[in-house]
Amino acid sequence: MSQARPSDPNFETRVRSSFERQGIMKTIGARLLSVAPGVVRIELPWSEAVTQQHGFVHAGVVSTIADNACGYAAYTLMPADSEVLGVENKINFLAPARGERFVSVGRVIKAGRTLAVCTGEVWAHENGKETLVAVMQTTMMALVK
Amino acid sequence: MSQARPSDPNFETRVRSSFERQGIMKTIGARLLSVAPGVVRIELPWSEAVTQQHGFVHAGVVSTIADNACGYAAYTLMPADSEVLGVENKINFLAPARGERFVSVGRVIKAGRTLAVCTGEVWAHENGKETLVAVMQTTMMALVK
Amino acid sequence: MSQARPSDPNFETRVRSSFERQGIMKTIGARLLSVAPGVVRIELPWSEAVTQQHGFVHAGVVSTIADNACGYAAYTLMPADSEVLGVENKINFLAPARGERFVSVGRVIKAGRTLAVCTGEVWAHENGKETLVAVMQTTMMALVK
Amino acid sequence: MSQARPSDPNFETRVRSSFERQGIMKTIGARLLSVAPGVVRIELPWSEAVTQQHGFVHAGVVSTIADNACGYAAYTLMPADSEVLGVENKINFLAPARGERFVSVGRVIKAGRTLAVCTGEVWAHENGKETLVAVMQTTMMALVK
Repeated sequence: MSQARPSDPNFETRVRSSFERQGIMKTIGARLLSVAPGVVRIELPWSEAVTQQHGFVHAGVVSTIADNACGYAAYTLMPADSEVLGVENKINFLAPARGERFVSVGRVIKAGRTLAVCTGEVWAHENGKETLVAVMQTTMMALVK
Repeated sequence: MSQARPSDPNFETRVRSSFERQGIMKTIGARLLSVAPGVVRIELPWSEAVTQQHGFVHAGVVSTIADNACGYAAYTLMPADSEVLGVENKINFLAPARGERFVSVGRVIKAGRTLAVCTGEVWAHENGKETLVAVMQTTMMALVK
Repeated sequence: MSQARPSDPNFETRVRSSFERQGIMKTIGARLLSVAPGVVRIELPWSEAVTQQHGFVHAGVVSTIADNACGYAAYTLMPADSEVLGVENKINFLAPARGERFVSVGRVIKAGRTLAVCTGEVWAHENGKETLVAVMQTTMMALVK
Repeated sequence: MSQARPSDPNFETRVRSSFERQGIMKTIGARLLSVAPGVVRIELPWSEAVTQQHGFVHAGVVSTIADNACGYAAYTLMPADSEVLGVENKINFLAPARGERFVSVGRVIKAGRTLAVCTGEVWAHENGKETLVAVMQTTMMALVK
């Protein structure tokens, strides 16, 4: 996909520090699994706190970890003095988010000067089996301070 | 919009009971504000628990309350013995979700036998002023048990 | 919606001149119906040339006139020396595009410095009856020359 | 992706015959390049007839060939006596559609009983170089006659 060459060598520290300031990630129990140029993974364990009416993970939470992985994937490639802003996202739900833990992967497919287009996936892990439960397409924007 | 005539007179009880079973709504502190045929409103007060890195409400949480209002708006028009399932959604973010409280409105614009198309809005309330912070377009599906 | 105040008093001439240069609009037989600040309408008569396999207007053509109305709605509010660029769009199809003629309406709901968010509708006219056949949400970008 | 096993051995004939009945494909000069289980390719040569105001292929036409490749990819896996219907699509534009010819690829990523989720890509071919100009995510529906 994208030839990801971060202009800021400290991209990982910058991403991790931003993630740490997000109240919602603590609230739902999500953590950064990996931060590479143009690719970020977030992990979420199942808990009662993130469920919909049938005990599966709520679509909004699935969307939240997909969007966040995409936003930080885009942020790895943005300048040191920038902020990342979500412009829009679209998600298709493929299967119920049933499992013990969930991994979202965000990937930059085109990084422009101002806008980045990313794709996201959310995988459910249940009894050693992985299922793709959602796919996302999103636009992120760099705000230079 | 849609001429909303619920086939199930107990649609409000059905929606409220489903909402009560969603762990995530308790976790973020959201509540059902109103349930009418084809139109549902959800309210979310600001709290540290739902923030992104700058202290505003996280885009994923904005998306979650928009999606949930749309899902339950569709559910008001579905048969008594059905479940509602999110097929996909698309959200555009118009302004930072800054404020004391947030109201999402979900409206059915086309209710078919299997699929319903809804639009969602999220409004921020700050110092007595309302700002539209996001708009959503989504497809919901009825699963008859 | 948006308080549309065009910075360029010649916005209509600019939009009409750009529209005239689009080969595809001639090819499908579409014409500009109206150009107002932040709102543009395009009309398309039914013809064999724009059909899908059942003789209705192809979803892609419905999408094309919705996207174009949105793009030009955004363009009315952009500076005199700018170009308009489509970033992304999302469309939900509500009914088959059956009728004698079709009108798309594009409206700006948020015009920022760089990006504009628009909504589009496509209406089918058949035997004096209007039916909403599609709704769109889209992001447009201003490129200043 | 999807384990594509068509239930109808005559899927290719069925897809080709439907494509032949689409007026718009003739109008823009598009042709079916390949039809495999769950994957369809469409080719479009550049022509004045499909341009936007700068002489590139119009975003709506890019969207049309992406949507059509996705629809027919889904249709390869649907029952013999079904019709395919576009529910919604979302497209991100990555680069201007500049080139001599364009190839859209539609792939099924999840085929359910009623709904199929597909991804689409559009590639521009210019002077022997390929550029990804758009990515799509879409939902298709099977209507059994």
